[in-house]
Amino acid sequence: MAICLSQLFLRTLRDDPSDAEVISHKLLVRAGYIRRAAPGIYTWLPLGLSVLNKVQNIVREEMNAIGAQEVHFPALLPREPYEATNRWDEYGDNLFRLKDRKGADMLLAPTHEEMFTLLVKDLYTSYKDLPVYLYQIQTKYRDEARPRAGLLRGREFIMKDSYSFNLDDKGLEEAYNAHRGAYQRIFERLGLEIVIVQAQSGAMGGSRSEEFLHPTPIGEDTFVRSAGGYAANVEAVTTYPLETVDASNTPAANVRKTPQATTIESLVQVSNELYPRENCSWEAKDTLKTLIVAVILPDGERRLAAIGIPGDRNVDLSRVEVNIGALLGVGGEVEVEPANENDLKDFPQLVKGYIGPGVSREQQLLGEESATGIPFYIDPRIVEGSAWIAGANQAEHHVYDAVVGRDFVADATIEACEVREGDMAPDGSGELYTARGIEMGHIFQLGRKYAEALELKVLDQDGKLQTVTMGSYGVGVTRALAAIAEKNNDEKGLIWPRNIAPADVHVVATGKGEEILAGAQKLVDELEAAGIDVIFDDRPKVSPGVKFKDSELLGVPTIIVVGRGYADGKIEIRDRRTGSSREVDLDEAVAQVQQEITAEEVSA
Amino acid sequence: MAICLSQLFLRTLRDDPSDAEVISHKLLVRAGYIRRAAPGIYTWLPLGLSVLNKVQNIVREEMNAIGAQEVHFPALLPREPYEATNRWDEYGDNLFRLKDRKGADMLLAPTHEEMFTLLVKDLYTSYKDLPVYLYQIQTKYRDEARPRAGLLRGREFIMKDSYSFNLDDKGLEEAYNAHRGAYQRIFERLGLEIVIVQAQSGAMGGSRSEEFLHPTPIGEDTFVRSAGGYAANVEAVTTYPLETVDASNTPAANVRKTPQATTIESLVQVSNELYPRENCSWEAKDTLKTLIVAVILPDGERRLAAIGIPGDRNVDLSRVEVNIGALLGVGGEVEVEPANENDLKDFPQLVKGYIGPGVSREQQLLGEESATGIPFYIDPRIVEGSAWIAGANQAEHHVYDAVVGRDFVADATIEACEVREGDMAPDGSGELYTARGIEMGHIFQLGRKYAEALELKVLDQDGKLQTVTMGSYGVGVTRALAAIAEKNNDEKGLIWPRNIAPADVHVVATGKGEEILAGAQKLVDELEAAGIDVIFDDRPKVSPGVKFKDSELLGVPTIIVVGRGYADGKIEIRDRRTGSSREVDLDEAVAQVQQEITAEEVSA
Repeated sequence: MAICLSQLFLRTLRDDPSDAEVISHKLLVRAGYIRRAAPGIYTWLPLGLSVLNKVQNIVREEMNAIGAQEVHFPALLPREPYEATNRWDEYGDNLFRLKDRKGADMLLAPTHEEMFTLLVKDLYTSYKDLPVYLYQIQTKYRDEARPRAGLLRGREFIMKDSYSFNLDDKGLEEAYNAHRGAYQRIFERLGLEIVIVQAQSGAMGGSRSEEFLHPTPIGEDTFVRSAGGYAANVEAVTTYPLETVDASNTPAANVRKTPQATTIESLVQVSNELYPRENCSWEAKDTLKTLIVAVILPDGERRLAAIGIPGDRNVDLSRVEVNIGALLGVGGEVEVEPANENDLKDFPQLVKGYIGPGVSREQQLLGEESATGIPFYIDPRIVEGSAWIAGANQAEHHVYDAVVGRDFVADATIEACEVREGDMAPDGSGELYTARGIEMGHIFQLGRKYAEALELKVLDQDGKLQTVTMGSYGVGVTRALAAIAEKNNDEKGLIWPRNIAPADVHVVATGKGEEILAGAQKLVDELEAAGIDVIFDDRPKVSPGVKFKDSELLGVPTIIVVGRGYADGKIEIRDRRTGSSREVDLDEAVAQVQQEITAEEVSA
Repeated sequence: MAICLSQLFLRTLRDDPSDAEVISHKLLVRAGYIRRAAPGIYTWLPLGLSVLNKVQNIVREEMNAIGAQEVHFPALLPREPYEATNRWDEYGDNLFRLKDRKGADMLLAPTHEEMFTLLVKDLYTSYKDLPVYLYQIQTKYRDEARPRAGLLRGREFIMKDSYSFNLDDKGLEEAYNAHRGAYQRIFERLGLEIVIVQAQSGAMGGSRSEEFLHPTPIGEDTFVRSAGGYAANVEAVTTYPLETVDASNTPAANVRKTPQATTIESLVQVSNELYPRENCSWEAKDTLKTLIVAVILPDGERRLAAIGIPGDRNVDLSRVEVNIGALLGVGGEVEVEPANENDLKDFPQLVKGYIGPGVSREQQLLGEESATGIPFYIDPRIVEGSAWIAGANQAEHHVYDAVVGRDFVADATIEACEVREGDMAPDGSGELYTARGIEMGHIFQLGRKYAEALELKVLDQDGKLQTVTMGSYGVGVTRALAAIAEKNNDEKGLIWPRNIAPADVHVVATGKGEEILAGAQKLVDELEAAGIDVIFDDRPKVSPGVKFKDSELLGVPTIIVVGRGYADGKIEIRDRRTGSSREVDLDEAVAQVQQEITAEEVSA
């Protein structure tokens, strides 16, 4: 049945809501799709619910198409499973916690890894039961510190989350790729441009993880991309492979006096003053910057480590955290911070401002096998054979021509430098540049972390218990709707893609005559008989100007005006997006609209 | 697409879950429709979700049919609106409360009266916007003290709740009746027998309220009904109207000595010993029992009242609470308890065991105008002109032939007696008997309570602000599903009505031959091509016995067996409910099933 504006629970607003920062938030409220109930918490009005259902159904269809099965978990959950995986604490203030009348701890679930794991454990016992993909479309809760941007970052929101369960890594890879494909189809159908970024270093992390980012200047996520198609989170970028250097002609390492050279800048200046080179002056990139950091493990243990990078770069501690975590095999949960005086008090041999690996391999002071025992990690830019000016661990002295592999060695190579615009993409696909995006989806090879914590095992072909391997996959449903609104609008209002719009056609009856209203009603009936969804502005005492403004604000793709021309058997068909309009014969109206819908479907 | 049991996320169980008390809970878990996540909190598995969606859609269709519009509110809400209506406190331990990261009080909504009121206030300003009916189908929360009976009484459950907004009482009556009709159609389509019981005395309460109870011995609600169709909550029952008595020949009231007659029993005995009647002996029903009670008002004020009832009855304090609350105009929120010694210490004239209205109208000691000022209320059974043995407010003395209206008067008549099986229904439709039921729905004329508390006013035709009048209407969706399961089963498992069932047909392929499986698959394809929903048991290594048991447990209405007869072009069609089966030609199978479905639809 047509949605009649004389009856619809709707009030459009001329002014932007005062708390709205982004255009999707402003327009969805002004056009009567949503309404704020509390900070970051929204009510869905009839038109909004209609659009939301369409987005959900697209997600549902694509999930069903890869054989995923829909279930529905409670939002209110007991503490225990989240305790077992440590997430009860890890989530910190982002988790809504509460107690029931008996004092039992409960939570409002932000995601459901634990519950899905327990459910499969509950029902399945054999490899024959696997693989299984399960999903739900569900209201989730996250107590954001700064809920902002309307539906783009709410505290109560709808997500599709799915989980795959496989016996082996090969199965997980298949499950992961199936979801990856489904997500590409979902966002394509939603008309949302997506960049798939690597969320974690494939080289070191072991398990794959990719984010589906929708590029937009208002996005909260920063990522880097290249013209050739590479894209990754900054934490996941790897360095473009550099060739090793032939050091056979490099002079022997030699210690020189470098007065007051405690910074890279002063070291470069002192070097050029006291030890000028013939062909070119010394630069920051010729120096080795050595930073001692404290690595705080999940269990609270504090370990020291030394990081070596070129002097013209800065250390990116987030990248170090991710990569050192992977190196130590503790996931991304370590914290890294510069070492403090207390950390260094037992190491008088490390002289502040002059710290380096050592004056020779025999006398190396950094490294697990060295006198200090502090592990020494270098950035991939510190390639085998390259020569550096490095601290000599003696006040006002540096080692010159210190060659990697000859004069010092490192325990491992890790990504430690900040990523800069202009750096080559790791796959050589062009220079990196920075972009912003909204995370619309995330696919993640969980591996056996949750299955181990919650003891999800099945019997394999040989009757032995095997821990199941899992993937987790999420799509932000309400966020996708907001992103669609964010992208599809103009100064007059929303412009919905047809497959998301609350109707195909918005029929506006103008003029005061009873005949026009009756004629419009007849047209509405005919459109509906032809299977076309209609919003009908049948409000008798509203001016044409207000009706036009509302039709533009609501954003249905096709607008039909039944007005002045009606007496001559003419109506007007307007395209909301292009603004173009044409007069057509009343008795051709239905056919014309149908043609338009079909044409769009074919071109889409 | 057919649901294939080789792929479906399902594990049927042979044993009842240990925490299940009622059959619906046992069978829904055993058949793999739901799974417990926490006490009173359930996960919906694929088959359960399918059935749940069908129930929801029936509710949705009937709500849309009366012009109600669907919206969707958050479940997580701020405290303030519930504070304004006092429900934050009134709900007590039943409300799940929590704090967000900033310390703000929030709740998980049990119902949404406040939010709907505020939403309409937010958007609407004029009588022209009314009436409007809004509804949602939503997850609700109630922290039940004893979650039991599976989905029949959970802590997280799904409800359809709707709210009507009208300018005047006539409009509210229309809205109420529209919902009443919709509910009758919903429960008819769900195949659930319903008794509509008056939930509040229409005579005194002013606003109508009815409960839709599904009669079942496991129900938690007690109600009374008559063979002629009357039904009401015990609190709402009114007394069948009694005629007044002609007292012109009744002797004058006279005080007699009644030694040690402090109870009705002893008073009857003493009367028969000392003052025997000619034609019949004295009985308890000839005495007036007078009870002094304390009425505790919502603001904590404690008032005394006297209640007079026939001596052969007991006072029902719940009924007194509801009716005295209505009499005092404070809703059903008063508490009533027997007066204690402290209450009575200022009234030495009221002698314990011998309390009565007084020895004459001039010397009445009970009543607002009397010496004590304690209001005196009598049950409708104390009719005008009837004569009683009443306490004389003097130790060991009673008044005989105390006639109502002649020798004493009351301030008001209220329903105070316990309701007994065998009492005449108030509409004369037969004797009352007690029954048990589950509340499946509730419709309630809220009137202006919420609109006043939250200041929902609109401009009327004369430009004056008028407070809107509201109704609230609920259907327990998950509870309805459980009630359907509770009613439709046998010792083998569930038996779904066709319009709720997860499929029309459950095809069982038995035998080991590849041919049979292929033949069954072909039949499944044909059934689906004909628009029939199919569950297909295609599990290759499962015995026919297990397959039959599972098909009976799952409860799809029609079972088709492709097995032994297949080589001769025969299949078997079984009716799950009746157990009858017949062999039909394979090439007639689809037509036969279609015929069966059509026949049921016609007869339904």
